[in-house]
Amino acid sequence: MEQALKVSLVGVTGYTGIELLRVLVSHKKVRITSVVSRTDKGKKLSDVIPLTLTESIADLYISEDVDPNTDIVFLCTPHEVSLTLVPSLLRSGFKVIDLSGAYRIRDKRVYEEYYNFMHEYSYLLEKAVYGLPEIFREDIKNAHLVANPGCYPTATLLALYPFVKEGIEIKDILVHAVSGVSGAGRKTRQVFHFPEMFGDAFVYSPLKHRHTPEMEDVIRRLGVSISIRFVPSVIPVSRGMISTVYVKGEVVNDVFELFQSVYEGEKFVKVLREPPHISWVRGTNYALICPLYDSRTGIYTIISAIDNLGKGASLQAVQNMNIMAGFKEDEGIDLKPLIV
Amino acid sequence: MEQALKVSLVGVTGYTGIELLRVLVSHKKVRITSVVSRTDKGKKLSDVIPLTLTESIADLYISEDVDPNTDIVFLCTPHEVSLTLVPSLLRSGFKVIDLSGAYRIRDKRVYEEYYNFMHEYSYLLEKAVYGLPEIFREDIKNAHLVANPGCYPTATLLALYPFVKEGIEIKDILVHAVSGVSGAGRKTRQVFHFPEMFGDAFVYSPLKHRHTPEMEDVIRRLGVSISIRFVPSVIPVSRGMISTVYVKGEVVNDVFELFQSVYEGEKFVKVLREPPHISWVRGTNYALICPLYDSRTGIYTIISAIDNLGKGASLQAVQNMNIMAGFKEDEGIDLKPLIV
Amino acid sequence: MEQALKVSLVGVTGYTGIELLRVLVSHKKVRITSVVSRTDKGKKLSDVIPLTLTESIADLYISEDVDPNTDIVFLCTPHEVSLTLVPSLLRSGFKVIDLSGAYRIRDKRVYEEYYNFMHEYSYLLEKAVYGLPEIFREDIKNAHLVANPGCYPTATLLALYPFVKEGIEIKDILVHAVSGVSGAGRKTRQVFHFPEMFGDAFVYSPLKHRHTPEMEDVIRRLGVSISIRFVPSVIPVSRGMISTVYVKGEVVNDVFELFQSVYEGEKFVKVLREPPHISWVRGTNYALICPLYDSRTGIYTIISAIDNLGKGASLQAVQNMNIMAGFKEDEGIDLKPLIV
Amino acid sequence: MEQALKVSLVGVTGYTGIELLRVLVSHKKVRITSVVSRTDKGKKLSDVIPLTLTESIADLYISEDVDPNTDIVFLCTPHEVSLTLVPSLLRSGFKVIDLSGAYRIRDKRVYEEYYNFMHEYSYLLEKAVYGLPEIFREDIKNAHLVANPGCYPTATLLALYPFVKEGIEIKDILVHAVSGVSGAGRKTRQVFHFPEMFGDAFVYSPLKHRHTPEMEDVIRRLGVSISIRFVPSVIPVSRGMISTVYVKGEVVNDVFELFQSVYEGEKFVKVLREPPHISWVRGTNYALICPLYDSRTGIYTIISAIDNLGKGASLQAVQNMNIMAGFKEDEGIDLKPLIV
Repeated sequence: MEQALKVSLVGVTGYTGIELLRVLVSHKKVRITSVVSRTDKGKKLSDVIPLTLTESIADLYISEDVDPNTDIVFLCTPHEVSLTLVPSLLRSGFKVIDLSGAYRIRDKRVYEEYYNFMHEYSYLLEKAVYGLPEIFREDIKNAHLVANPGCYPTATLLALYPFVKEGIEIKDILVHAVSGVSGAGRKTRQVFHFPEMFGDAFVYSPLKHRHTPEMEDVIRRLGVSISIRFVPSVIPVSRGMISTVYVKGEVVNDVFELFQSVYEGEKFVKVLREPPHISWVRGTNYALICPLYDSRTGIYTIISAIDNLGKGASLQAVQNMNIMAGFKEDEGIDLKPLIV
Repeated sequence: MEQALKVSLVGVTGYTGIELLRVLVSHKKVRITSVVSRTDKGKKLSDVIPLTLTESIADLYISEDVDPNTDIVFLCTPHEVSLTLVPSLLRSGFKVIDLSGAYRIRDKRVYEEYYNFMHEYSYLLEKAVYGLPEIFREDIKNAHLVANPGCYPTATLLALYPFVKEGIEIKDILVHAVSGVSGAGRKTRQVFHFPEMFGDAFVYSPLKHRHTPEMEDVIRRLGVSISIRFVPSVIPVSRGMISTVYVKGEVVNDVFELFQSVYEGEKFVKVLREPPHISWVRGTNYALICPLYDSRTGIYTIISAIDNLGKGASLQAVQNMNIMAGFKEDEGIDLKPLIV
Repeated sequence: MEQALKVSLVGVTGYTGIELLRVLVSHKKVRITSVVSRTDKGKKLSDVIPLTLTESIADLYISEDVDPNTDIVFLCTPHEVSLTLVPSLLRSGFKVIDLSGAYRIRDKRVYEEYYNFMHEYSYLLEKAVYGLPEIFREDIKNAHLVANPGCYPTATLLALYPFVKEGIEIKDILVHAVSGVSGAGRKTRQVFHFPEMFGDAFVYSPLKHRHTPEMEDVIRRLGVSISIRFVPSVIPVSRGMISTVYVKGEVVNDVFELFQSVYEGEKFVKVLREPPHISWVRGTNYALICPLYDSRTGIYTIISAIDNLGKGASLQAVQNMNIMAGFKEDEGIDLKPLIV
Repeated sequence: MEQALKVSLVGVTGYTGIELLRVLVSHKKVRITSVVSRTDKGKKLSDVIPLTLTESIADLYISEDVDPNTDIVFLCTPHEVSLTLVPSLLRSGFKVIDLSGAYRIRDKRVYEEYYNFMHEYSYLLEKAVYGLPEIFREDIKNAHLVANPGCYPTATLLALYPFVKEGIEIKDILVHAVSGVSGAGRKTRQVFHFPEMFGDAFVYSPLKHRHTPEMEDVIRRLGVSISIRFVPSVIPVSRGMISTVYVKGEVVNDVFELFQSVYEGEKFVKVLREPPHISWVRGTNYALICPLYDSRTGIYTIISAIDNLGKGASLQAVQNMNIMAGFKEDEGIDLKPLIV
């Protein structure tokens, strides 16, 4: 495999890192040249991650820096770490797919208000491509920096895009989303200690969440300026996310047909007539979207399900990598769900 | 306990029946005189329900009919069964608390459209009292027939009532609710077979659910005519429900204070500043309500958590019984949550 | 309630402390005079524990020391903390129920080998009463120090006791036990972070666990010297435990009858003909025991289910308190299971 | 793909059928020529199984009979159905991999006692090859009928095989196993209705289970005649199984080394020094085995974890198919676990 794409993973021991590893070790056209983690540097990868995940790369040691023999670097690092790593990696000539939020939003003031840091590399915000292939595929092809979307924005934007693309006027957007706990990361917290989260569910950040400006910012790039009322919640599953999007707007003839036609040919977006189950996307890169119109109240309801670690993070990152490398877009990520 | 209130349970082997039993066997002022189930008649109760639940009434056999020596009958029966049982039980002089939907709605046309039957006893719809004590306590005291509220309506109406009571104008009501699986009853279904529901979640009945007209009907009785956009979903827990209610309307000074003042003195409704967890109400009769206002979009968000089998069904039924019998309202249902 | 028993809880914010609180706030003959926690001292109890649990004692602040106006102190503290607290509390004239392992074992050398500390108060080991009422009820009545049993020993000893009591010779004892995660305490750990424990299960400490010498020590007190092969494991539930005990030994006529006769009159131990479910004891003080004999291999199999936080910890502690105070043994702990 | 192996699946709508489908639709060297189900015949496969699983074969309709253009037939049918299908399929010239128990045991009397049917095709019991590749690989290569092992036997036999192969004398075999609920099949049952199984666990069939004679029969073929005390139990996960095997016997120098040497070169069996988690094998064909010796009691404890639908059923069936077809043994089943 001399022509293999050489990739490195930074932040390999978090959930998005582990999920990337799961896919990349089996990707026929990729070779992992380094795995990086500040907390576990020096350790053998297979001592940190279960053996069966690492078998083919069991001799890999976790390093402190990205191997120079790398084409694309995946950053599974916190926002603040990505913020400073990205410019230096780009300067070193690597292409970067950043799974954090540090380069997703054009308006740098958002970072002060929602992320609590000043964005010192705002010149890169213009150059970063938002890695949602179904919307920005052409830009991704030649990108040097891909800002891989957040999980909630992925599910939600795919539910709103057909209206925006087709110029259907919409307003009063309200998004109620439920997410599996892996979306909150691998760091332990009291509220996610198993006995407490088992059988529990709750709304969090009901008034202010970072993904709200991310969604508004991306829609603005598409020419529509709009406010979104977004409320996230967490349910006791490891993976999976449903974003239910409520919209008022222009009445179309057949909202199912509208969505079908916009997503025709998109392998990873399926338009359904029935509400999707999160088990139908478990471990996959699929988004399942059911668009409905309630004539009684005049409200569209679009139900969008993804795996927050799949299409909502790591598998979408590999989809972006495939596009950047000119591979078949589903190479290595044509995975089928574990429906039980 | 010579002065004990004599009660009978019809439909004792479903979840609301079992939950009633859990509470009533320990209720100091109640004696169970008969347990009725068509499917299990003739069996010893302790052969059908786990022993530890039935110990003190282990000699009770499941009968086909209500024992005449009964003051109040709890109906845990399907809507269609309650429909015809209620008039005959009332005629026999029993008071009835019906946990089904058969007598909850004043407008009998709703039954044709949402329940698929003609309501032949519509004269009783006027007399049935809607058993939500925090709103209709006075009527319950003297009721002969209490229609025990649905779980979604209980959580939702408690979240809307302060606006209605205080005459705050509201509109564009949108309710997104998540429920534990016990809300769907004890009858097995493929979609709720453990391996399929484990790790799953989904929206169901997104365009038409029986609880929508129930909520609209009750609010109408309070003098407000309004449409509600209601979308239910199911999450992989046994018990627990969160109704998140989105409302536009008149801006009040302090929505938390508004709710506090309306529910002052109500033991079973607690107003919180943070979103409630369903684990905080597990096994209890509490409703925990967090009212918020998002000034960015001008939308109220009220998050209301109950145990669907507790305040959402059987414990509320016992609360109604206590009121009807003149007992302390929390007698036998002052239960604390299993937070793990 | 002037004659109320005055109790204090030390270590109130762990799971056994919270479970004690759940029961004691509703116990008719008890008044909580102080709640103690080093980590949360100075805070209002209702700010640390969900409101509905603390309502009736909402004005209680967490203190650093036990209120002198206390009859019995419950210690929900780590072994090392209990070790030194017990002698000083006893000197102050309090009676103590210690939920840790610090005073459960007579042989002080076990503490060096299994607990990693030298037991400096070995004179108290002789005086401590092992708080398993079904075996040591008489001793508990007058005890000043009750060592509340571990969860695995509770389930296992109740499964072995009938053989020992009736002088049936047994050997080759092998115990395979599964436990809910709350048994490992409230402190967060990576392996019990929700996304990792969800859908997981594993054996742990397969060669050396502290509960092995505890079980052997208690059986030795009953006159039988024997080795136990004990292997614990964890399953993805919050509560509940099944100890499956395999024993070779003398063949009895009817092992079910043997167990029935030994536990006749014991409210909290039920002998079943079918294997018990942990859901049947959820939130209760019951032990459900199914004794079987496999004539093919000549092995007894006794399946014993408890709630590890109930009969396995806090509810049994209250049972001990009731005995010490001369109350009805089931006062305040006659709770029925949440079978869903 | 003209040289593709042509396979048919009978009983495609059960869990082992769906799991086979998940793997086979992505298998590079296989073409599915027919999917058979009596209950769903005539339906479009994608109407019965979630779309994303069936995309590439979305035009396939469920038929009543196996397409003649088939090389290998997978039977995911009940024992009784397989019993009569196998001889007729063999006569038609198909090779058969039967996932039921109908042809696993040589001693036909077992079928009367444990399966409640007379085995009329006992001549085939001699010819059927037990499809555990790590033990019977050579026989599988040329087999016409492979009896795919049960899940418990797979996990258990892999834990015992090193002793048997190396001639280490063993006795007193006791197996305590926990299994995910999918092992009980897809047919709904009250005890597996989600609200009842959620948070539950229990031992079942403690005295008589079909997998006991299967294990004893296979070990007998290896030259050792021995009784096994086997007790299965179910835990609230969809997938995953741990078989903990207790054995007395000859003391070896280093049991870890023994197991390592026996399984050297086996891709799908990994010998570990720590007890395995079922999450480490989720969705995979791996068996993870941790052999331990307790010198205190002289008992070996071997902990063996598999995915009951993976190595315990469908993925092992594909491993057998690969061997029969002369493919690389891990072709299409080199899947990595979803560790969250």
